Amino acid sequence: MIHLSLTTKFNEQLFDVNFMNFTDTISSIHHHLEVAEDELTGWLKLPMNMTIDDLNAIQFLSEEIKENADVLVVIGIGGSFLGAKAVREALSPNFTKNQNGIEVLFVGHNLSGSYMKHLIESLHHRDFYVNVISKSGATLETSVAFRILRQYSVERYGQNAKQRVIVTTDPENGLLREIAIAQGFRRLDIPSNIGGRYSLLTPVGLLPISVAGINITEILQGACQAAIDLEVDDIEKNEAYRYALLRYKLYSHGYQVELLASFEPRLSYIHEWWKQLFGESEGKDKKGLFPASVNYSTDLHSLGQFIQEGNPLLFETFLHFNNISEDYYIPFNRVDDDDLNYLSHRSLNEINAISKQGTVLAHAQGGVPIIQIELEKLDAFHIGYLIYFFMKACAISAYLIDVNPFNQPGVEAYKSKISDLLNLESIVNLVAE
Amino acid sequence: MIHLSLTTKFNEQLFDVNFMNFTDTISSIHHHLEVAEDELTGWLKLPMNMTIDDLNAIQFLSEEIKENADVLVVIGIGGSFLGAKAVREALSPNFTKNQNGIEVLFVGHNLSGSYMKHLIESLHHRDFYVNVISKSGATLETSVAFRILRQYSVERYGQNAKQRVIVTTDPENGLLREIAIAQGFRRLDIPSNIGGRYSLLTPVGLLPISVAGINITEILQGACQAAIDLEVDDIEKNEAYRYALLRYKLYSHGYQVELLASFEPRLSYIHEWWKQLFGESEGKDKKGLFPASVNYSTDLHSLGQFIQEGNPLLFETFLHFNNISEDYYIPFNRVDDDDLNYLSHRSLNEINAISKQGTVLAHAQGGVPIIQIELEKLDAFHIGYLIYFFMKACAISAYLIDVNPFNQPGVEAYKSKISDLLNLESIVNLVAE
Repeated sequence: MIHLSLTTKFNEQLFDVNFMNFTDTISSIHHHLEVAEDELTGWLKLPMNMTIDDLNAIQFLSEEIKENADVLVVIGIGGSFLGAKAVREALSPNFTKNQNGIEVLFVGHNLSGSYMKHLIESLHHRDFYVNVISKSGATLETSVAFRILRQYSVERYGQNAKQRVIVTTDPENGLLREIAIAQGFRRLDIPSNIGGRYSLLTPVGLLPISVAGINITEILQGACQAAIDLEVDDIEKNEAYRYALLRYKLYSHGYQVELLASFEPRLSYIHEWWKQLFGESEGKDKKGLFPASVNYSTDLHSLGQFIQEGNPLLFETFLHFNNISEDYYIPFNRVDDDDLNYLSHRSLNEINAISKQGTVLAHAQGGVPIIQIELEKLDAFHIGYLIYFFMKACAISAYLIDVNPFNQPGVEAYKSKISDLLNLESIVNLVAE
Repeated sequence: MIHLSLTTKFNEQLFDVNFMNFTDTISSIHHHLEVAEDELTGWLKLPMNMTIDDLNAIQFLSEEIKENADVLVVIGIGGSFLGAKAVREALSPNFTKNQNGIEVLFVGHNLSGSYMKHLIESLHHRDFYVNVISKSGATLETSVAFRILRQYSVERYGQNAKQRVIVTTDPENGLLREIAIAQGFRRLDIPSNIGGRYSLLTPVGLLPISVAGINITEILQGACQAAIDLEVDDIEKNEAYRYALLRYKLYSHGYQVELLASFEPRLSYIHEWWKQLFGESEGKDKKGLFPASVNYSTDLHSLGQFIQEGNPLLFETFLHFNNISEDYYIPFNRVDDDDLNYLSHRSLNEINAISKQGTVLAHAQGGVPIIQIELEKLDAFHIGYLIYFFMKACAISAYLIDVNPFNQPGVEAYKSKISDLLNLESIVNLVAE
């Protein structure tokens, strides 16, 4: 399903791609992950354990929203935002996002006053539902946005407002859960044993994706296939383990930045989701590959120079789908004043694939190692497969550098500083009054 | 106009922010830049030298386009794409991009067949103009897109199509210039002594920006003020030189990645433009800071963990505008079930600024040095100022690490590989036929 390869200037001389030395290490991580039930590993078996009932609940709700609203406003940040946005972008047309669904707008991932003002204005003449997503309900950005959208919903729909608010949160704890119960909002559960950046295949991602018109059954089928394929404890056969090992070896050789690259503009938010997944899982104890991304061809004319000849601190990972159903053909031009007739009647996707090959050759020759991840087709099934592939590879990667893939202690630092500053200000204001 | 500061865990103990040792180096670079007329330094005096006539030509054309079209399709890549897109995004509302102008769509910066198909479909029931931007006309992505749009224009407008095509190119050389003359397309000039990534304040950026409804006179007034303020050969007074020196010192201390950060989502393409400017100018001879970017708060819940506690290879540069005219106030909630009443009636922009302060404190405490660039107001004048500030600082930065700020030899590598592959294929095809 996934084809993985490595290209370097010196091919296999620089990097020993014989993984046999790692058999024991990988086996021990493999077994740890399988039995680590106290950790946040609920996502591992999730695609197999999801029932038709679970799926139906989300799909019925999605149908209700599509019938009664023009827009779904999703309130969330981090793992409660990036995944749904990534899948929606990857599987929708480039200029209209709502072919088989309705528009999905995201908010609560920033504190910009102008963003909020423009968002509310864009709702004035349209019907909407709200889906607030937060495990705790205590994140400042999300809870401020939810307060604003709740008030606006009541202004617009009065007593019926509560029918239009769906709360996705922890089934047992948290402020958001309490609010939902007190106000009578409908709830969807985020399983307690799944953390934010591993939650895309739970209702966190599935409801917004479904409302956007994407077939979530196919997403889950792809993830399920990946869960089966990537369960094998054999480095030679497990592509997720091989990806984790390749990047670990490059990291051990001194590479400090991994640059995820693709040639399809619709994949740019898959990059963003991947950056959170790997950055937040690995970036601890002064360790980790810094995750960055580029969209080609665009960035060949931006960061291309740096990659080819600059500070050699990075390697690239190319993400490529071999088949993309929409395409465009280059026309023949009788006068050929632009010297392009040798490309007449050829498809852009085909030339795009050749441009990927050329870029791999040029960058490898410049000394940049390149991992290639290839999938058959850009569709819901393969996106589901890819998501699971990355999550599994990420957990293994973090264990390889001996950090916990499932916590994020550093995120608290900025939260507590902001809270200090805001509370200090309120006290000062009170005294002044 | 610009306020610059540095925050580190140890404040000035780690980095000697006394720049006096650099007086001679900076002076010599300053004088080199002033007299380097053989190099691509035309952008230095451009804002002062632009005449009302030049400006009128662009504005008249812009009015014609706005009257006769619903969409302007801009064809360009790299410096012929990022700048206009960045300024349009920064100065337009978040959900509707064409308040005082018409929609501007960008193409020719990728080879995606689906992107092209969706773009052409989106034009079917609307009137459009085409503005193709390329110094040489020889870039594959741009020239393929231009061939497609030319053919589509003729399908739609027949003999009148040529009235709707504007060519922005070199005044003396290149294939695109020849096509324009032969076909009778109207032309705008890219001054020969200005390279792609320094061309935003020429017709390259100004026509699309003006069509999008943004006041280009104010952009140029800001740039002109910057050109005057940043002409002084005095490290203590020249903020562009101080920014260049700060990042140079951090680079010399082993930092390898500069992360441009801002708290306003509309600035994300300013980051992309900045990445090309610095990455392509500095990334040579195995040198340079790798330019990356984050949008906060979003990325505090993505890369925040890595920045706070991961591999300590990066410093941050915060870009902040003190006043943003659109805002939103947090409502009071009688029951206060979300514990947010202490923020009632306060503005989001104000809380956003506090969240920036908190982030600076948290990251500095985590050991990340932070440069802060502050401007008074997010408007056309200050965006013009910022653009010039970055271009001047970038040229100085490249000279400080002893590379040429104005060439990009590494970009040719991938172009020639693709060309080889495409030509090889045509020969194989010919033989096969």
